[in-house]
Formats: sequence, structure tokens, C-alpha cells
Amino acid sequence: MSRETDDLPSREEDLEDFALGEDYALNPEFVPMVADALDRGDSERLRELLGALHPADIADLMGFLSSQDREELLPHLDPEMLAEILSELDTEIREEVLEAVAPATLAKALEELDSDDAADVVDDLEDEKRAQVLAAMPEGDRAAIETSLAYGDETAGRLMQREVVAAPQFWTVGQTIDHLRRESDDLPELFFDVYVVDPSYKPVGAAPVSHLLRAQRDTPLAQIMEQITEIPVDMDQEEVAYIFDKYHLISAPVVEPGGRLVGQITVDDIVGVIHEESEEDIFALAGVSDAGRGADVWETVRSRLPWLLVNTLTAALAVSVIRAFEGEIVKLAVLAVLMPVVASLGGNAGTQTLAVAVRALASRELSAVNAMQTVRREMIVGLLNGAVLAVLTGAAIYGLFRDARLSLAFGLALVINVFVAALAGALAPLALERMGRDPAVSSSIFVTFVTDFTGFFAFLGLAALILL
Amino acid sequence: MSRETDDLPSREEDLEDFALGEDYALNPEFVPMVADALDRGDSERLRELLGALHPADIADLMGFLSSQDREELLPHLDPEMLAEILSELDTEIREEVLEAVAPATLAKALEELDSDDAADVVDDLEDEKRAQVLAAMPEGDRAAIETSLAYGDETAGRLMQREVVAAPQFWTVGQTIDHLRRESDDLPELFFDVYVVDPSYKPVGAAPVSHLLRAQRDTPLAQIMEQITEIPVDMDQEEVAYIFDKYHLISAPVVEPGGRLVGQITVDDIVGVIHEESEEDIFALAGVSDAGRGADVWETVRSRLPWLLVNTLTAALAVSVIRAFEGEIVKLAVLAVLMPVVASLGGNAGTQTLAVAVRALASRELSAVNAMQTVRREMIVGLLNGAVLAVLTGAAIYGLFRDARLSLAFGLALVINVFVAALAGALAPLALERMGRDPAVSSSIFVTFVTDFTGFFAFLGLAALILL
Repeated sequence: MSRETDDLPSREEDLEDFALGEDYALNPEFVPMVADALDRGDSERLRELLGALHPADIADLMGFLSSQDREELLPHLDPEMLAEILSELDTEIREEVLEAVAPATLAKALEELDSDDAADVVDDLEDEKRAQVLAAMPEGDRAAIETSLAYGDETAGRLMQREVVAAPQFWTVGQTIDHLRRESDDLPELFFDVYVVDPSYKPVGAAPVSHLLRAQRDTPLAQIMEQITEIPVDMDQEEVAYIFDKYHLISAPVVEPGGRLVGQITVDDIVGVIHEESEEDIFALAGVSDAGRGADVWETVRSRLPWLLVNTLTAALAVSVIRAFEGEIVKLAVLAVLMPVVASLGGNAGTQTLAVAVRALASRELSAVNAMQTVRREMIVGLLNGAVLAVLTGAAIYGLFRDARLSLAFGLALVINVFVAALAGALAPLALERMGRDPAVSSSIFVTFVTDFTGFFAFLGLAALILL
Repeated sequence: MSRETDDLPSREEDLEDFALGEDYALNPEFVPMVADALDRGDSERLRELLGALHPADIADLMGFLSSQDREELLPHLDPEMLAEILSELDTEIREEVLEAVAPATLAKALEELDSDDAADVVDDLEDEKRAQVLAAMPEGDRAAIETSLAYGDETAGRLMQREVVAAPQFWTVGQTIDHLRRESDDLPELFFDVYVVDPSYKPVGAAPVSHLLRAQRDTPLAQIMEQITEIPVDMDQEEVAYIFDKYHLISAPVVEPGGRLVGQITVDDIVGVIHEESEEDIFALAGVSDAGRGADVWETVRSRLPWLLVNTLTAALAVSVIRAFEGEIVKLAVLAVLMPVVASLGGNAGTQTLAVAVRALASRELSAVNAMQTVRREMIVGLLNGAVLAVLTGAAIYGLFRDARLSLAFGLALVINVFVAALAGALAPLALERMGRDPAVSSSIFVTFVTDFTGFFAFLGLAALILL
């Protein structure tokens, strides 16, 4: 920011090099350049600056601009560019942008997108505007979007694109290629497999385009086609991502309940889903409901406060144990000093087990097959960790207070709490999974509560028994 | 498990349907069927059972088998199958399997894999065995693996496959397709782009195979080729994943420092990386170093204990504050009851901010551009959350203890701690990132320490001032 304006690059290529840092993230100095051009209303400079960026980078840029600058930027984007940027924007910013753009402009932009991306954008529109936008679109595009929206949120149907290339079983490679050349205009922009279908349009195999390219023209499709993994149209997107990851799929056919081919999912959509799902896990474990970039302060507060309130209640329950031992604490205040250590170590041990269990469940490494075995192993690990910590801290406490019984009470309480932490950390997500709930959500509240409660109760209780 | 053996499916197709559940995870009942066949040494039944599975599912199955059953299973796998399974196995189990297989068998299996996957497996071999295996391989394969291993761990060079399809700028679509048909045997098994190179073998564009297929034969490659995003060979895999995700890439050319094309990375490898990196974030936040499935109890203990030990030290530091206020606690034991609530709520608020900041850094939504703005926003959110919690809990405490000054001390301490938590949760990962360190690692230790320390100090200190 300390650079003079005349140091800044102006030639087109220089600008492209300048726009992105070495790590392909937007150059921090690029943002004020855009803001400056917006302030001056210099639309030629803006065209130059935006021309140096990929739509994904413009979406990124918009995240860094102020709300007002964002709105001023919109008229400088042509429909095609606007369309691509819309499907890259974070939800909050997208909603803001959608409000600012006229229905007719939006309709024109959405025609540029694949049906899945267009549906995704329309889904974010408010009811009234949605009706206006859809009414302004050509019949075919509107129908595709409406069909897509009819599938549940986060299902394969919503994720798939309806544009797909299919060929009958009895065709040869040559016939297929000739067909593709003839129909070139109606094909999806990019595709990786030609699905081979039977007369009732059920997929029976897939011919990767790289195999089509190198096979002799008279080779029958049936000879070069590969096994397919069919995705039911109502499958949850997390399952779809699991299957793509497991079998290293590039694309997969999506089928209706009857088995008819209705669309395809490609791996580039899955990359986004994997990102989303792992972010959901991290946020669920940390007790945050998602409020992305662009959320205002109040939305952020609302995304954090509920869990803190629940935590207040569980904390109140846990510390009610301490209240029961107030008499002991008055007699021996060192108990108050040491009790948080027992609770905290238990909490951390529980969080460790919990994180491992949640990830193992997500990747199906943990399932009904090895659930009991895993819980047993976590219990042994908990006992061992607890024992090691108890010996070390017990010795330190003895060194500090020269009180063997205090050391003993602390050490025993620690073993108990770290053991209980391991048990709770493994069982909570397993139980939630079995109940068909997300194992990451609310299990950390439970584990924290259990380890706080057990920590205070075990230490104060043992101290009362042994010491007083 | 309650089903009789004669209920179990035996026909091949039935077996395939039975092997995987509806969610494409391995059927829990399938595992004992395999273990049973192994016990009986029934190799025909084993061939049948394994035949129903994809290599990825066999790798999964092996994770559920006992170590002994795993070893007994190995002789039943042919080299090609073994190769594919090896590249699917979790590290710990893979190391165990690699030890059990003879070098000559391994060499034969590795010849079946792409250079990147083969290098990945060889990397897990112990020095002596690695030398034996490499010596048993043909010169070409060995060289490819050694070149791959020469690149740093987790870099683009290690991730890429050397097998790549390139064509000179001046070729037409027809010439390219003819060439592919002629060279069919030397091509990668699957490819998505033909890289267009200049005379010095620098990539200048990429022709997606689906574009090659539908273009007319006399179209020059230069006309249908698209812009490429070059990946430097020494780029970190996390950056590579970021670029693939951002630009929705299917494949990208990897170039040497001089700009020469040396290989390609395809999106299916990236799916694995994204999984790995987000798992690393979750585990780092929870204080677990990775010890996957197959790790024995001691390895698991070793993966958890270090952080618990560090936590013991930080907890000791934090509670030393309480020791300084022992006198106050003896006079008013309710302080001991309430102080963990202040610390705990601060800890949870800090964890929330931390999780959001770590993810935002990973997706480049948080960068130097908006760092200060984000910290400021988090501070405001912290103040608001703290204020809401202070009012609610303050009222509850007044209701319980009828002591306005106690309520006041508690409420003020809570506001301070939740504010400090937000500040620490945002600043810690930003500082680590700026120092070039992983923002997820060790920041949660720091945040927990700060919120414990501040919680105890603020509440006990304010109580001493206001109440006593």
C-alpha cells in the first residue's frame, strides 16, 4: 500500500501477473486499485482491471470490497461474466448481489450457466424475484431449473447437470464420434464419459472420452466401455462425495428410481462438496453454525450465541457439583486450585477422541463392524494416557504441596476423568450416528459436559474421602 | 450376524449386491464371511468373495480384518489387484502389508501403477527393502519412481504423474487423433486434456478431449485450446488443491523451473489431498497428531499424549492464578463454584472464532487484505456475545445468590473473557500464518490457555475488588 500509483502496473499482461500473488491468492494491493477506480467512476480502468481476473478471482475480490463498492461494480459486468461470478460467490454476498440486480439481467445471466449452477443461484432468490426471473427465461431453461429445484437440498439430483452425452450399446466408436461432431452445439461444454445406454435409457457402461479418442473407429462401444457406479437421484451429497473419493470417479451417471439416466455428476462439483462437508464438521465440533464471509455482525453473533447459551447451561450443571463440596473447599482451598486441571485435561482428551471418531465415521473407517473394538481400544488408550498424566502430575503436586494424599486424590481423579473422556468421546458420535443424526453436531457439548462433571465430582469426592 | 450361513448369498451377482450396503460402505456381515473363509483356508470361496469387491473395498475390508487375517489374505491377491489395493490402504496397514510381501512380488505389483502411486508406495518401504524392490524393477519404472521421490513430500512433483499427452501447436485435430490411435499403448490409462506445447516443450494451452472429439478434423489445435494454469513442480499440495478448487480444474500441467512440461496432476488426486488437508486441520485443532486406522494402542497413545502434556503445563500456569486468590476463595467459596463457568465460556467462544479463522485462512477468504477488519469484527462480536451472556447469567446468579456485587463481578469478568477469547481466537492463527506456520497447529493450546488465565484472573480479581 506504500507504493506510488505510478509504480503500479498498467500493461495488460503485467496486470495479470500483478493481480495474483505467487500462491494464486488475490494480491492485497489489487483491492484498493479497484476501489479507487470505482470511486473515480473510471469504467475503462475497471474493464482493464477486471479483464486481468478469472471470474473466481472477481468473486474473491467482491468478498474484499465494501458493500457499497460491490454494488457499484455490478453494472460493469456483462451477463456472461455476472453468471460465472454468481456461481462462485459466498451465499451472503450472493444474496446481496442478487437483490441489487434487475430480474431481466439475472434471467439473461442464468441462461449462460449449466442447469445445476443456475438452480443453485435461483434457490437463493426471494420468492417474488424468483418468479420474475423465471418468467423472463426461455421455457427450456426454466423447466430445467424447476426440475432441479424439485430435488431436495444437498441431494444428487440438485448436484447433477441434466446435460449428458449418451449413446446406444450397438454403436461403434466411429458412429459415436460422428454423432458428437454433428450434435456439437447441443453437447455439454465439457464431458469426460459417454454413457452407454440400453433401449430403455438405462446406463449399462461408460466410455471415457480418452478411450474413444484412441480406439479404432470400428470398435463397438460395448468393447471399450467400463463399469459404472450409478448414483440414485435422491442420494445425499455427502454419500456421493464418499463414492467419488473411494472409487476415484471423474463422472458418474445419475438415475431415477426406475433406473433411467437423468443426468451426471462430475468430480469438479464434488471437490466443492468435500470442502463444504469437512467445513461443516469443523464448525459443528467448534459449535459454530455457518456464517460465511459477508455475514454481518448480527448474523455472526446469531451463529455463535446458541452454542454458548447451551454451554452456559451445561456449565451450570457441571459446577453445581462444586457447590456440593463448598465446605471441603473452604477447609482446603487448594482443591479449588487443582480441580480445573482435572476437568481441562479430561475435556481435551475427550475432544481428541471425538475428532478422531467423527472423521473415522465420515470416511466409513469406523462402522458397525468395528464399533465395539474401537470403543474398547479408546478405553485402553484413555487408561494409559490417564495413568501417564497421573504419575507425572501426581509427582509434581507432591513436590509442590508435600501431601501424598492430595497427590493420590488428584492422580486417581485424573485417571477416571481421562478414561471417561475417551469413553464419551467415542460413544457420543457413535450413538448420534446410530440415531441417524450428524455425529459432529452437539457431541462436543456432551463430551465437555461429561468431562467437567466427572472431573469436579471425582476430584472433590475423592479428596473428601481421602483427605478430610 | 444372526443369519444362518445358508441364508447368505452365494451367486456372484447376489454377492456383489450383498457386499456393499446402500450407502456403498462395506456390509458389516461381509467381514466375518471373509474371516471364516480364511480360517477354513477355502481359497475358492475367497476368490468368489474378493471378486465381488472393487480394490478400494478390499482395502476397506483389510482395515476391518485382524492383523493375522490380513497376512493370510495376501497370497490370494494377484499382483495387479495387490498393486491397486496398496495404493488405497491407510499408511499403518500398508506398512504392515509391505513388510509381509516379498520384494519380487512387490516389484511386479508396482509396475502396474502410475508413477505417482508407485512412488507413494515405495516411499513407505524401509530402506533395505526399498533397494531390493527397486533393483527388481525394469530400468524405466525404477527411474520414474526415483525421480518422483526426489521431489519433496506433499509437493506437486510428488503428486503428479509423469505420463502426459502433449502435441505441438501446429497440429490439427485430425493429426492429433491419428497420433493418439497410433501411440495408444504408450498413453496414460485415462486423460482429460492434450497439452499443446511450443518447440521448447513449454505448455501454451490445453485441448480438452471432449473438444477434440467434437471438433472437425481440420481444426488447428491452437483454435480449440484453452488457457492453462501451470503448476510449478515444487508447489505445496495444499496450494495445488486450492487452485484446482478455485478454478474447477480437471487436470493441470506441471512445469519445471524453466517452464518445461514434466507431468500432470488430475483432479482425482486432488480429492484425496483435500480430504487429507481438512482432516489435518480438524486433528490439529483437536490436538491429535495423525494415527489412522491400523495404528496400535501405543501409536495412538503417542499421537495424543504430547498435547495433553503441553495442556498440563498451560493448565498449571493458568491455575497458578487461582492459587494467588486462595485467601479470597476461603472467605467466599462460591467464587470457586463460579470461576470455571467464566473460563469455560471464554474457551468455547475462543474455539468458535479460531475454527472460523482457520477455515477462512485455508480458503484464502481471510488474508492480509481484510485481516485487521476481521479482527475488529471479531472483537465486536465478542463484546456482543459477552454482553448477552453476562446479562443472562448475571440475572441467574442474582436470582440464586441475591448478591448484586457477585453478579456484577461475574458479568464483567465474562464480558472481558469472551472479548479476549475473540481477540485471541482471531489473532493466534493470523500470527502463525504470518510466521509461515500452520495456523491450525498449536493455536488452540494458546487460546485455551489465554481464556483460562483471563477467566480466572478477571473473575477472582474483580471479586476481590468489588466484594471483599
